Amino acid sequence: MSQGKINVSVENIFPLIKKFLYSDHEIFLRELISNATDATLKLKHLTSIGEAKVEYGNPRIEIKVDKEGKKIHIIDQGLGMTSDEVEKYINQVAFSGAEEFLNKYEDGAKDTGIIGHFGLGFYSAFMVAEKVEIITKSFKDEPAAHWSCDGSPNFTLEESKKEDRGTEIILHIAEDSTEFLEDSRITELLNKYNKFMPVPIKFGTKTETLPKPEDAKEEDEAPTQEVDNIINNPNPAWTKQPADLKEEDYKGFYRELYPMQFEEPLFHIHLNVDYPFNLTGILYFPKLTNDLNVQKDKIQLYQNQVFVTDNVEGIVPEFLTMLRGVIDSPDIPLNVSRSYLQADGAVKKISSYITRKVADKLSSLFKNNREDFEAKWNDIKIVIEYGMLSEDKFFDKADKFALYPTVDGSFFTFEELQEKIKANQTDKDDKLVILYASDKEAQHSYIEAAKTKGYEVLLMDSPIIAHLMQKLEGSKENITFVRVDSDHVDNLIKKEENQISKLSDEEKETLKTDLEKTIESKSYTIQLEAMDSSASPFIITEPEFMRRMKEMQQTGGGGGMFGMGNMPEIYNLVVNTNHELVSEILNTKTAKKKERLINQSLDLAKLSKGLLKGAELTEFIKRSYDMVK
Amino acid sequence: MSQGKINVSVENIFPLIKKFLYSDHEIFLRELISNATDATLKLKHLTSIGEAKVEYGNPRIEIKVDKEGKKIHIIDQGLGMTSDEVEKYINQVAFSGAEEFLNKYEDGAKDTGIIGHFGLGFYSAFMVAEKVEIITKSFKDEPAAHWSCDGSPNFTLEESKKEDRGTEIILHIAEDSTEFLEDSRITELLNKYNKFMPVPIKFGTKTETLPKPEDAKEEDEAPTQEVDNIINNPNPAWTKQPADLKEEDYKGFYRELYPMQFEEPLFHIHLNVDYPFNLTGILYFPKLTNDLNVQKDKIQLYQNQVFVTDNVEGIVPEFLTMLRGVIDSPDIPLNVSRSYLQADGAVKKISSYITRKVADKLSSLFKNNREDFEAKWNDIKIVIEYGMLSEDKFFDKADKFALYPTVDGSFFTFEELQEKIKANQTDKDDKLVILYASDKEAQHSYIEAAKTKGYEVLLMDSPIIAHLMQKLEGSKENITFVRVDSDHVDNLIKKEENQISKLSDEEKETLKTDLEKTIESKSYTIQLEAMDSSASPFIITEPEFMRRMKEMQQTGGGGGMFGMGNMPEIYNLVVNTNHELVSEILNTKTAKKKERLINQSLDLAKLSKGLLKGAELTEFIKRSYDMVK
Repeated sequence: MSQGKINVSVENIFPLIKKFLYSDHEIFLRELISNATDATLKLKHLTSIGEAKVEYGNPRIEIKVDKEGKKIHIIDQGLGMTSDEVEKYINQVAFSGAEEFLNKYEDGAKDTGIIGHFGLGFYSAFMVAEKVEIITKSFKDEPAAHWSCDGSPNFTLEESKKEDRGTEIILHIAEDSTEFLEDSRITELLNKYNKFMPVPIKFGTKTETLPKPEDAKEEDEAPTQEVDNIINNPNPAWTKQPADLKEEDYKGFYRELYPMQFEEPLFHIHLNVDYPFNLTGILYFPKLTNDLNVQKDKIQLYQNQVFVTDNVEGIVPEFLTMLRGVIDSPDIPLNVSRSYLQADGAVKKISSYITRKVADKLSSLFKNNREDFEAKWNDIKIVIEYGMLSEDKFFDKADKFALYPTVDGSFFTFEELQEKIKANQTDKDDKLVILYASDKEAQHSYIEAAKTKGYEVLLMDSPIIAHLMQKLEGSKENITFVRVDSDHVDNLIKKEENQISKLSDEEKETLKTDLEKTIESKSYTIQLEAMDSSASPFIITEPEFMRRMKEMQQTGGGGGMFGMGNMPEIYNLVVNTNHELVSEILNTKTAKKKERLINQSLDLAKLSKGLLKGAELTEFIKRSYDMVK
Repeated sequence: MSQGKINVSVENIFPLIKKFLYSDHEIFLRELISNATDATLKLKHLTSIGEAKVEYGNPRIEIKVDKEGKKIHIIDQGLGMTSDEVEKYINQVAFSGAEEFLNKYEDGAKDTGIIGHFGLGFYSAFMVAEKVEIITKSFKDEPAAHWSCDGSPNFTLEESKKEDRGTEIILHIAEDSTEFLEDSRITELLNKYNKFMPVPIKFGTKTETLPKPEDAKEEDEAPTQEVDNIINNPNPAWTKQPADLKEEDYKGFYRELYPMQFEEPLFHIHLNVDYPFNLTGILYFPKLTNDLNVQKDKIQLYQNQVFVTDNVEGIVPEFLTMLRGVIDSPDIPLNVSRSYLQADGAVKKISSYITRKVADKLSSLFKNNREDFEAKWNDIKIVIEYGMLSEDKFFDKADKFALYPTVDGSFFTFEELQEKIKANQTDKDDKLVILYASDKEAQHSYIEAAKTKGYEVLLMDSPIIAHLMQKLEGSKENITFVRVDSDHVDNLIKKEENQISKLSDEEKETLKTDLEKTIESKSYTIQLEAMDSSASPFIITEPEFMRRMKEMQQTGGGGGMFGMGNMPEIYNLVVNTNHELVSEILNTKTAKKKERLINQSLDLAKLSKGLLKGAELTEFIKRSYDMVK
């Protein structure tokens, strides 16, 4: 048996980095700016504890693109490196620089915001550069160093004349990476990854208008001057304390995050926790539409103010991925599989912390300003309803503030609704029947019919509402949801009263035969009912159960492709035997006139249910014009 | 000045691999099976050229999961390694194993299908394992070797008693990766990455029913036996020659690719090219809906039969990402940024090769079986129309076979359409007016009116059709698309004929005043027209230009959020002064009756254009029931 050490063949480390290390080359800039930021914040820490006897000043990081010379410069004013330190940190591919520093200055270092996460950072330069130079002068009183390496493992190291403190990295961009010599590309990257990093970053200059001198004439142009263009906001709102921020500050930060978004957010939730994990952030509720699918992936994940990704799947519960904003946490493991992420204890805690904070915020909005909460309900309900469906803990909290709007614009909580309707809407089996419409316009005549009975009609128009109703029916006792057009109004809530039919059984039989002769019986099940004489003569209804099952399948529940998604609609034709027109149909002797009466009545019933279309509608309109005259 | 070699600190290589190398840990299995496949195919090559004097046989790769022992075994019957080779290939982290082999056996090696792409494969084991063992016996007459490493750089290497040729890798799964000890997870991974790899892969056993013995009684159960469960198809259809495949084979392969998909594909395109790049594959046209967004990312990208990704953005032109199927090419650079990919010469060639092949296939389907092509048109048009919009080269080809269906179900090419309608549908300015409807049902009365004039009406119902019409109007001469409800029928195609109005100018003035008194003038611009007396008395129209601009903005063209997406609809009310009913309105003396006539006529016109809804509709229906009696 032999023993030994695995030997990493250094000839292969650069191709390795280039090919495998990061799937996306563009992150080299994020890595190098992270390093520059670290170097600056480390110096800040050392000066603050008196270890470095230099002036910290107002350091910044500068990016310069030299398109002609095919070079990118990244220049910082941080602690710099001595020649020995270059030997140690650069020539040894070791990935623990930040860690070592943190261990050494353990007490204070945690608060300095040192990034240190992307520890391998520097070598990512070789993903885009064929040659890399480092010119660096330490805050210690030692000569500057100049390191240079062409991507082979051979480097040179010599003294440099650099006099000011800090590090300059010079990338000689390779042929396959010239895209990064475009100002627009660099601007894009800085905006994506570095917009909120904690040290000011300068890229390019911009022209600013100065105030006119006092003795200037009206027609004189205002003088201008070139000023440095700082591309980042080193102190983004989420790093501050909620007490230090006003409503305008939150709105302003939203505009910083989404400059192309002109609509203001409805409200925000400031996240801020130290234990048992570290997380800050601000979430915003935007105005949401009723479409579940289009509005995801707008939340940005940061680690110590460095942008990581806008895919927060697994970290934020799914129903909250429709929100916007920022989450910043060093405690979320990156580069792990999604399934591992979801099983990770810390991540689970983060996810349920966020859910709880959102529920608490909604609850307090509801309690403190009910009117405002109602006004916002339609723009936020999709999140709340989806959350109630998918997270039981959220359901329990949301059940107290979730609103049920009526077609007339009143809003009830479930408890209030129950109280309001129980007297009038409890059926003979002691079940509370909650009536709803999905479309105020399309179901107008049915809504009106229900209102004449004094019933409240809810407006339930979310795409997932069928699932939510199913859940509510399962979790509450003795309630049922019924759509207003699922039966005629006397049957919607069955009570112990029987309308007396004007027609005898014999007459009914005759009427039924007449109707069946004219109406294609495949399309409708004919149902004679003794209703109020002022109700419509003909009414088309669509039974609740089958319709709801179909809807649930279409929005992705239950049996999927074997389901009822393709089933035909089932309709009943309710004929009100107490209506004058129906008596007239029965008593008309001419077959032709009888047929015309039936057809016209059926057309009007179809029109009322939105079923009269195309050629049938054109025919109906032509007939009606003739009748107008 | 000093010079030297960069020294890779070996202590850090394993955390590096674990943390940074791959963003998704699950690919360890793909890597190890790729290695096992390589080892097997290399042996096949060596035996075929006589270099290895052993029986190749029917080797396979076996995966075993030992849940209790927390181990995964990957066992192959390939060429194995001697102790020296383990030293060379494993103890030196070198990434060029496959390359070296290819260089050595240059001539034949290219055809052996050696994978060798994921060269770093073996070390990915440490992403999920805390300890890894290799037990391997070379095809050469040397003792077997047993290598073991616990994730530190220290390894042990000793002799082993293994007698059969090949390599066994044993992974001792780490605490944070126990998900991979679930059979279901391994099955999932094998299905995702290894379903079409070229060496049979065994995982688990399954029970198979044997034929009953001849003397068995009716009630006897058929005997069963456990058989090996081979999870992959080593010879998937795309690796074969088109000449060797029948229609059923292509359909069968589609089912292999998408087992949850019950609808058959409409047709396929077999891709097969050697030069200037290497690419094989089969693309399928599925039945597509009219929704651009939901059906992307179904094409799978392979490299030498190993699954890589189902995101082919940048490789396949965007309009073809709605297709399904497989592309296999070793020439597509992985792990590069999307923008680099799109600029890459080879990838550009691949993309335009695929576009050309698709256009050629469509063209030959059109030529060889026009009837069948017409039958499929509605299921494939979204791809073709989107392609015509986005790729000029495709437009030029597709212009010859793109179809324009009429509302009556005829199909014309653009040239045929032009020929058919030019006599009747050229206006007084010599412009060819192409009439269309977007919805046969909703625009029925307008379609009928156009048909009475002998006009052809196309049915154009794609979501992007407004953009395509714009493009056609720009690229063809003197044509214009006009929707049937954009003006009254006499104005749709303006000719040198003038209908004589029955009304005098004075009467018109009176009529207009009457109408404006009753109709809210904000909603409609009233337009008196002398039309055929048999045309409708009232017609609501919606001018083409504004409507189309609105549509284009809603489907994401042009000015975006500052555009007309939120502009109100603009309608005209055309009143036919030659219609009997209009005369009646004019001549009615009672104000109340006049108002009723106007309102009822307006309601019918609104009904015809789908604008009578909600309370207005309920009111109309109630009124109409009264009139029926």
